[in-house]
Amino acid sequence: MAAKKSHRCCLETVKPLREALDVINGKWKLPIIISITTGNQRFTDIQDSIPGITPKVLAKELKDLEQHRLIKRTVIEDYPVRIQYTAEPYSETLGPIIYALQDWGLKHREKLLGGEQPIPAQNSTA
Amino acid sequence: MAAKKSHRCCLETVKPLREALDVINGKWKLPIIISITTGNQRFTDIQDSIPGITPKVLAKELKDLEQHRLIKRTVIEDYPVRIQYTAEPYSETLGPIIYALQDWGLKHREKLLGGEQPIPAQNSTA
Repeated sequence: MAAKKSHRCCLETVKPLREALDVINGKWKLPIIISITTGNQRFTDIQDSIPGITPKVLAKELKDLEQHRLIKRTVIEDYPVRIQYTAEPYSETLGPIIYALQDWGLKHREKLLGGEQPIPAQNSTA
Repeated sequence: MAAKKSHRCCLETVKPLREALDVINGKWKLPIIISITTGNQRFTDIQDSIPGITPKVLAKELKDLEQHRLIKRTVIEDYPVRIQYTAEPYSETLGPIIYALQDWGLKHREKLLGGEQPIPAQNSTA
């Protein structure tokens, strides 16, 4: 019964975290938001600012972010027509997550540089 | 040239964040750490506490977490042999990320319940 109790406890704690991860899932969404916030508004500029991202993935991620009202896609009636991406005010609420991840990433790098290397995982059954 | 400048700026800001996301990537690692911290030490208990996770994915994620010294895998010489997972002290450093995600997840749910639904993404070219 103790195990069951801890399961319930765990689910309660994890649910909002899972919901947040569902929105900012993957390794691209936060870098894309940072890129747009930093001033990259055109598709190609955003793509150039994020090494490794493919146009297909970027297009998909931009649509997801627009759907969650984190960024805004504007069609500018120019010759030729331009598409501009800007950050919605709601994206600012992600600040604490971004700072926490950046802070941890910096400390983790220091830890690795300090000589503590990851250990090779054992290849036995789980 | 302004665009180039913002690219460089963006990369500097994003690098530690990307490194953090590389370690806790995907939607399973943080829930697994929370499950273990909450007291689930056996493979099946961890699996039961995380709806939707498959044994194959859980085994892979546990190995990754062990490799990054976030959890510890102990073989207990019993009859039958038991495998126990416990949280390493280093996993506690993920606290601010977990809290920031939980907090955002709760507020995001309130926002959605408050009537602000995500907008359907436009199906045109990016």
